[in-house]
This record gives sequence, C-alpha cells and structure tokens, in this order.
Amino acid sequence: QKMGGCSSQSCHHCFFEYETERMIVVKSKVVGSVFRLIQFLILFYVIGYVCVVQKSYQETDSVVSSVTTKVKGTGFTNTSDLGARVWDVADYNIPPQGESSFFVLTNMIVTPNQTQSTCPELPNQSTICMSDSDCLEGSNDVRGNGIQTGLCMNYSETVKTCEVLSWCPLEIDINLPEHALLVAAEDFTVLIKNSVTYPKFNFHKRNILPDVNSSYLKQCEFNRKTDPDCPIFRLKDMVSEAEEDFQTMAIRGGVLGIMIDWNCDLDWPEHYCGPKYSFRRLDNKIPENNVAPGYNFRFAKYYKTTDGRETRTLIKAYGIRFDVIVFGTAGKFNMVPTIVNVGAALTFLSLVSSLSFSVNAVCNWFLLTCTKRRDYYSKHKFTYLDNIDDNAGEPLGETTYGTR
Amino acid sequence: QKMGGCSSQSCHHCFFEYETERMIVVKSKVVGSVFRLIQFLILFYVIGYVCVVQKSYQETDSVVSSVTTKVKGTGFTNTSDLGARVWDVADYNIPPQGESSFFVLTNMIVTPNQTQSTCPELPNQSTICMSDSDCLEGSNDVRGNGIQTGLCMNYSETVKTCEVLSWCPLEIDINLPEHALLVAAEDFTVLIKNSVTYPKFNFHKRNILPDVNSSYLKQCEFNRKTDPDCPIFRLKDMVSEAEEDFQTMAIRGGVLGIMIDWNCDLDWPEHYCGPKYSFRRLDNKIPENNVAPGYNFRFAKYYKTTDGRETRTLIKAYGIRFDVIVFGTAGKFNMVPTIVNVGAALTFLSLVSSLSFSVNAVCNWFLLTCTKRRDYYSKHKFTYLDNIDDNAGEPLGETTYGTR
Amino acid sequence: QKMGGCSSQSCHHCFFEYETERMIVVKSKVVGSVFRLIQFLILFYVIGYVCVVQKSYQETDSVVSSVTTKVKGTGFTNTSDLGARVWDVADYNIPPQGESSFFVLTNMIVTPNQTQSTCPELPNQSTICMSDSDCLEGSNDVRGNGIQTGLCMNYSETVKTCEVLSWCPLEIDINLPEHALLVAAEDFTVLIKNSVTYPKFNFHKRNILPDVNSSYLKQCEFNRKTDPDCPIFRLKDMVSEAEEDFQTMAIRGGVLGIMIDWNCDLDWPEHYCGPKYSFRRLDNKIPENNVAPGYNFRFAKYYKTTDGRETRTLIKAYGIRFDVIVFGTAGKFNMVPTIVNVGAALTFLSLVSSLSFSVNAVCNWFLLTCTKRRDYYSKHKFTYLDNIDDNAGEPLGETTYGTR
Repeated sequence: QKMGGCSSQSCHHCFFEYETERMIVVKSKVVGSVFRLIQFLILFYVIGYVCVVQKSYQETDSVVSSVTTKVKGTGFTNTSDLGARVWDVADYNIPPQGESSFFVLTNMIVTPNQTQSTCPELPNQSTICMSDSDCLEGSNDVRGNGIQTGLCMNYSETVKTCEVLSWCPLEIDINLPEHALLVAAEDFTVLIKNSVTYPKFNFHKRNILPDVNSSYLKQCEFNRKTDPDCPIFRLKDMVSEAEEDFQTMAIRGGVLGIMIDWNCDLDWPEHYCGPKYSFRRLDNKIPENNVAPGYNFRFAKYYKTTDGRETRTLIKAYGIRFDVIVFGTAGKFNMVPTIVNVGAALTFLSLVSSLSFSVNAVCNWFLLTCTKRRDYYSKHKFTYLDNIDDNAGEPLGETTYGTR
Repeated sequence: QKMGGCSSQSCHHCFFEYETERMIVVKSKVVGSVFRLIQFLILFYVIGYVCVVQKSYQETDSVVSSVTTKVKGTGFTNTSDLGARVWDVADYNIPPQGESSFFVLTNMIVTPNQTQSTCPELPNQSTICMSDSDCLEGSNDVRGNGIQTGLCMNYSETVKTCEVLSWCPLEIDINLPEHALLVAAEDFTVLIKNSVTYPKFNFHKRNILPDVNSSYLKQCEFNRKTDPDCPIFRLKDMVSEAEEDFQTMAIRGGVLGIMIDWNCDLDWPEHYCGPKYSFRRLDNKIPENNVAPGYNFRFAKYYKTTDGRETRTLIKAYGIRFDVIVFGTAGKFNMVPTIVNVGAALTFLSLVSSLSFSVNAVCNWFLLTCTKRRDYYSKHKFTYLDNIDDNAGEPLGETTYGTR
Repeated sequence: QKMGGCSSQSCHHCFFEYETERMIVVKSKVVGSVFRLIQFLILFYVIGYVCVVQKSYQETDSVVSSVTTKVKGTGFTNTSDLGARVWDVADYNIPPQGESSFFVLTNMIVTPNQTQSTCPELPNQSTICMSDSDCLEGSNDVRGNGIQTGLCMNYSETVKTCEVLSWCPLEIDINLPEHALLVAAEDFTVLIKNSVTYPKFNFHKRNILPDVNSSYLKQCEFNRKTDPDCPIFRLKDMVSEAEEDFQTMAIRGGVLGIMIDWNCDLDWPEHYCGPKYSFRRLDNKIPENNVAPGYNFRFAKYYKTTDGRETRTLIKAYGIRFDVIVFGTAGKFNMVPTIVNVGAALTFLSLVSSLSFSVNAVCNWFLLTCTKRRDYYSKHKFTYLDNIDDNAGEPLGETTYGTR
C-alpha cells in the first residue's frame, strides 16, 4: 500500500499522501439487504456474544489462594474395645492441621496392645498351609501382614496358616461396624477462612467480608438463604448439598470437595467479587469398579511399657476427608485483547462484502439475464491487465471496460 | 476475491492471476499528516505495547511446582506446666513434614494429664445451672466441651455448671500468655527447596541456582542486597518484609505467605529465569470482623499409665503457618499468537484509512466549499451501479462520474 | 466504508446499498504463481498448524483435581537400636494421610530414650572449648543443638565442648547407614485415586476408568504395556521410569514426582480423555550445589515414664516423598477463539496481495523495461488526486492516467 504508492514519489511527498481503496456501490434492494443483514448479525455477535457473554475484551489471571480450617464439636462412642469415650477435635481430626484439607473420623476398627511378635497370618488363598513346607521363611507378600517365619501354625481349630513376624495380634478388618461409630460427627462445624489474590491485578480479598462483625461470626451457621456470608459450615449440610447422606457416607468414609469459586469481573466494583460455595463428592462410591471404596487409612498410637518395650494401638480410621478446592479466573479490561478480538471480528465484516458478491454471483448464475449483469459487475469490480512478463518491451494492451 | 475474478475464467487462467485493490491517493497535507500520524501511532502501539510490554506474540504455560522445607533452630521456655524445657524442630514443627506449608509453634496453652472422666463444664450462658433439671443428659453442644450427664455440679464456690463426660480437667484457654512463649522462634531459619517445570516448553529449574556451591549454602542467610541467591530464610526477616512484627504476630499466631514468582520470558536465555520472593500476611489480623483471630489448632500427646489407662496432654498450639505459594507463567514466541495479535492490529491499520476519510468528510461538512470536494472524492472513491434486480432485462445505466 | 458511501445519500437509500472494493487483476504467470503459492501456504498454515496442531479454535480451561493415596506393604529391619522389627504402613507412612503427597521411610537414624537434661555439644568449630570462659550461658546457635549453660565439659577423652540444655543424649547423624535400612520398600505398592473436573465445561472424570472391575483392581499392578489402566503402582517401577535406582535414592531419600497429565480435547468423545502418567525426580541429587541432599526430616515419639517424666525417641527419617502432581488443560470448540484466530490469519491473506505487488515492484526495479510496467501498474492501482485543502475554491485537476 504505502510502498507501491511511494515508489514513484520522493519520501517527502509520500508522507503527505493518504490512500484509500476505490469502492463500487451496488444499489440493489436484495443484495443490499442481505449485505446489511450479515453486517448487522456480525456486529450483534461481536457486541453481544464476544463482548458481553465471553468477555473477550478482557485480560485474565488465575487465582492464588490460602485456606485455614478449624473444626468444632464432640462425639460419644461406647464400644467393647475402648469403653465409653468422648472424642474431641484432637482425637478425630487427623492430622491436627493440614493445608486446605481436613479429615473427620467417623468409623474405625481398633486393634489395641499390638507388640512386635509372631502369630499366624489371617487365612486366605496364599497363607493357608498344611505343614511347614508350605511356608517360605522370609517371604513377604505386599498384600500380606508381615514376614513369614517358615512355620505353619494353627490359626483356629479348623484352619492352619503360615506364621508371620509382625505387630501381633493382627488387625481383623472384615467386620466394619454397620453404622458409623461417631454419629455426632454430622453436627460438627468447620470454620473456613480463605484468602485469595490475583497477582496480575494486585487484588486481594477474603471470604469473610469486611461488613460482617465478630459477634455474628461467633454464633452463625452457613445457610444459602438466611446466612450466605457465614463461613461456618455444618458437616451434614455440606454433605447434603452434594446429594449424599452423611450417615451412609460415614460408614466407609469418602472425600467431599468444598469448591470455592472466585470467578470475578474486576471491571465491576470490588464488592461484587465474592466466593461462591458448592459441594461435590469426589471419590467413587460405585463398588463395582472400585478397590477400597470410601476413604480410610491406618495410624497408630505408640506407648512404652514399664519394662521399656514398645506397644501400639493400631486404628484403621474411616472418615470423610474434606478438600477445600479454590479456583477462579479474574478478568479485567485491557487494550490488547480488545484490539485482538474486536479487530478479528471486524476482519469478518470486510470479508462479508466479498462473500455477498460471490453469493450474488452464484445465485445469479442461473438467471440468464443475470449473466449479463454478472459480467457487468465483474467489469466494474475487476480491471484486467494482461501478462506483464511475457511481452517484454511491447506496449501493453488493456482489457478493461466500462471506464471509458 | 478469487471467486469473483475466476467466475468468468477457466481455472487454469485463474491460477495465474493476481488481484489487488485499486486505491485512490489523495495528496493533502492535512489529511495525509493525520493519516500518517494515526498509522504511526498504531504501529507504535503494536510494536511498543502489544509486543514489548504485553508480549502478546507469545504462547503461555502455567507453572508446575514442588517444594520441600526444613526448619532449624532451638528455643527455650520455662513455665509452671512444663518447667524448664528446650524445644527443637521435632517439638515445634507440627506436623513434622508437610508439602509446601510448615508450622512453627510460638505460643501455647497446655492442659496435661487429661483422662476420660466427668467434670463441671466451663461456665457460660448455656452451661450455668441451678439444679439437675437445668441440665439435659446426652446433650451435646457443638461449641461445648463434652456430653452432658444431666447433673448440676459446683464449678467453683460461686457458680454451678452442668457436668460433662469429657477429657478432664477441661482446657481453660482464656488466659493466653501476653508474650509469645517461644521467643527464640524469630531466629529460626528455614531452607526452602523449590523445583519448577513448564511442561509445554519442557523447561525445568530449581531455586538453588547451579553456580551456588554447598559450602556457601551451609552458612548463608537470605538477604535481598547481599545474598539474594541463598535459599535459607530467617523467620523474623520474612515476617518483617510482610510489614509485621514477629513477636506481636507470634502471640495469637497467623498465616504468612511466602510467594515465589516464576514469571519468565523463555525467549531470553535460561539463566534470566529465576525465582522472585515476596512475603505477605494472609490471615486477617483485624479483630472486628474476625472469629478466632490468628492461627491455632489443638493436638494431643497420648500416654498409657501402668494400669493401662490412657492419659493425654492437650496442647492448644498458636503459631505461624508459612505457606509457600509458587506461581508464574512462562511465555515463549510462537507463530500462532504472533499472527493472531499482529494480524488483528494490522486490521486496524487498514481500517484507519476509512476512518480518516470519514473524519475528513465530517470536518469538511461545515465548509461550504468542501461540499464540492466531498462529492468530488466520493465520486472517485465510490462508483455507483444502479439497481440490478429491479430492471430485469433493461440495459443498466451508470451514475459514475469523473472517470470520463 | 459505509459512512463515506452514505454521506451523500439518505439513510433509506443507504440501507439498500452494498459496497465492495474495485480490484485490478494482473494476468502474469510469474506474479500470479507466486501470489497463489503464498495464498496456499497461508491457508495450509491456517488449517494445518493453527487449527490441527495448535487447536487455536478452542476455548480452554485448567484442571481442578483431588487425589487420595494408599500404600501397602511390610518391611523388616534388624538393627542394634531397635532389634528385629517389622515395619507396616502405620510405621513408615508419615504422616498417615496427606493430600496428594505421601512419604515412605527408607532409612533412619534413631536416638532413643532422650530426656530434657544437659550434656556436652557435638564438637565443631563453634562448640569446642578449653574452659568455661569459652562458653556463653544462654547462647543459642540456630545450627546448634540447644541452649548453652556456660560450662565447658569433656565430650570425649580428647576434646572438650560447651555444655547445652537439650534433649540428651544428642543425635549423632554423621553415620548414616550405607545401605537403606528398609530394603523391602521398593516392593511396596501405592493405589492412586484421582478425580478431575473442568468446571467451565462441566466435565468430571476419574483415573479408574468405568470399564475396569474391582476383582481386576484387587490384584493388578501398573505396567505400560500389559496393564496401563491399573492405578496401583510399585514404588520401584515408578523410580525406575524416572531413570533412578531405588536403593541408591533410598539411602539419603529424595522427592519423586508422579505427574498425571489430563490434557484433553473435549471435542472428541469423553472416553478419549484419560490420564497420562510420567515420573520425574524433583529434588537435586547433585551434591556440589546442594545443602542437605536427599530428603529427610525429624520426628519424635513421646512416652511418659512411671514417675511422670517425659522421654522421647528421636527419628531422623530419610525416605522418598512422592508428590502426585496433576495438571492439564482441556480445549473445546468455541466460536470466539475460532473467529479471532481464523480472522487474524485471513487478514494476512489480504495483506499478501499488497506484499506480492511490492515484491514484484522491487524485483522489477532492476529491469529497465519494467520501469515502464511498474508505472503502468501504479497508474492502474493508484489514482492520484491533488491537494484538497491548498486550492480552496479552484477546480481540482486530476492526475489519473490509464482510465481514459
């Protein structure tokens, strides 16, 4: 453009020139209407969808977040192993502090007073034996319970199994209580404090809004209708919103996601940007394609006897792990994506005219009389210049029409 | 473009044609200057802002990171509960290993020798009673300390409260020490090892730079001016950079963010890409809209007496949790965003000529003499062809001027 | 475009007009071929690279993930400190449950029966003394082992060091076992359950695919060729894929990343979207620029003696921390990025014609005869209109050629 025009001028003259394309204006009701309609549709699309819905004029940033949680509540159990017992947060919240995840024990299998000694393995396909020759000393099955000693011992009156060196007595985990032991866990509450940052926009906010005072916070409980700003959640309510039954989930345990959505449009004032809570069960509760359904892990409390020997209480802890998952994208107006997106959409505007012309040419193809008109327009739109390189030296003819 | 031109030719001829728009060049000092100025501004914007500042010619990727931390230091306390005592990392770093977060105990309330038994509740609105009828057996307040037995007992000489089954004696947490117990915590140091990856670009790097040797690392301490490459940070320095006082923060605890920014331009050599450390307090220290200000959690150490009964020491641990937050985006030149962004900006260049023309037309509207010129230019820019569809069969007239 | 054409018409007429640029068609084999070739290359680039490879017509979203892990296996050690001992998951998996990270103890230095008392410091540059005056009471070196008492004691027959108040006897960690103690750790297995979400597309999936049944899961082990869908991984296999030797890494410990890549094209059916596992060592194993190579941390087990005094066993635990790192981006067709990217690429198509013209002009510059042709084309491409503002009122001349 500039280059062609300037090549025959000096730069000084060149600077003061201004180029624009020559246009043909076709006065035609049909073609003109179609053309305007397509232009309007594209403009509407650019403004309506690209700008308003997709917000493509904005620059984006991902959220950076920090979470603290604090569980409150006590529960009561009465079992043959442990007797009548009260459980408080130091007992059921294992480990005592995590980053954005907290665990609440709801059910358990307890094996107290384990010591390092030898005892017969639990009976299964690979451990049942007839004599010592069936057992291999030093054998260590990953799915087993210890190191085999090579002896075949009586497990019970009816079956013999290979003896192992392990923490004895072994844990028998097939008889999980039918109902979760810590029934009161559904009424426990958790205070979630979440602080987010969008570094690119230097934006900081917390989920406890500035206008909420501390006396309200000391007694409130989250409720979507009555208390949507309260950061204290009852465990049962969260599980219910995820369309699960707390007591059912509590038997084998599970993983519940507490999603905090911080998607914000920072072109609006800051107080419009707030957390949106939702809850989803994250683990697979379908037993058919699941190994170890639910959620459990083993931990132990270690003690020393008076004679200095170590004993432990092994606890297979079933419970619900709550993962606080914070995500979000912030958008803010920025010239660059605006130019990119609006510019690209406008490219389509300028292409539309060519498209319409072709549509017109195609649809007129079938009308005999329009053949003339197509040529007529072609003449006006297109000026044909013959081969430039083939006829070196000879004066070049023109095949343009309609301009004389 | 191609379609219209080719419709009257065979494909063979079509292939060897080359189309370009016809242009009008207006020699006008005013309009030409304005036009060139707008072109220059857009070019400058494209190069200066889009390319250099916003780096929109680059493809981006988000950081994937792994962190390990190791705290060092010992502290000394002398309290009535525990006596003279030294605290080392196994004592104050709870839990002993985390992923990218570590906790340092600075203050505590210790309730030793708790056992499962019954005792009167702590007095408050809902626990004070006159007689047994004020207490409901089995009642379990989430904010309470155990399961009520139904009896009303003397809490002290002046007040009676409902008795609970719980870990007794109950914790009395209203008398938090005025000064943090573990004063020496401010001099503890933490070694932070951070390994990052940008999977899309197959880029890996660590925060301990390759040119730093191990004898330096054994004794250095991070300092922005003198030792910016040392990955060992003094806790007090980090808290100070976040504009907080360590000892004040240590009384009730808090959460400090250690931000590691890995924003990198991978078009530059690899050694330009490094970690940028910054520190921010993440929890809300304003007590007015805060429940449980600071940061604390409860944990217990469990013991067994000689007669097999379980006792525990409950510790309400206040301290500073340090969250290592790694974020960043890498950019690298890629043809696709370059084409997209530069292409879109260039669209604006071509639109400018139309804009200038309209500006010229509008501003000339008020000058009577310019009416002639506007028409003059219109004639040259626009060639009008009359209704094509209305006059089927009749020869079409032309209303083009200035080309004869 | 619209504006210029409409300025001399009423809006009604304006609506039914349709504008398109006037084009010159140059019939030239050379220039035409070059032009078509460049057009073809750009189209090929747009379709082949922008669309197929880069998928720039898609809108993207980042993965939101939740992970649970469960380690299985037992190991056997026989040391002077602890005797013959079996280790199960409650013993070596510290802490017992984490979020997406799990630790397996492979080597250790055990210091049993520590009590709060005084003993001489370990000898080094800053602790060796001749007399009490060399030791400062209350001095507390961050890299030291306790609070100095001010006395200079015999550490051994040959050297004297300053006495400290600390957990005595002090840990001596220079004699790390040459081979990892828990050799069997390489055969332990871990079950990884990973649940991912792409919130923008409401897409949820787990790494245990729906068609895998639970009896298969109870006995399978991940193998890239034979069992790529099994979520149970043998520790040794994972370390080998990261090109490390398990037993070597197990001596001082390390950090292994288990990357789960969920990059998906959601325009394809859902079952095409699955996890891709890879393994990388994340810590720096090069000792030259490393402080505390490998991975270790200290923790303690606390006990109470019959007279109520607290003792502890300090364990410096070396082992491999496995970080499950889930990342990924999902793409799905969306009109907006399609318009943006395709539109921008098409802008280049229209610019190509101007580029070709200039290329032609430049290359013809050197051919004397072509000077005529360049002017010839210039005449047809460019219509020059003289200064509009300088000659107010006078009839404007034209310097256009070739249109008569």
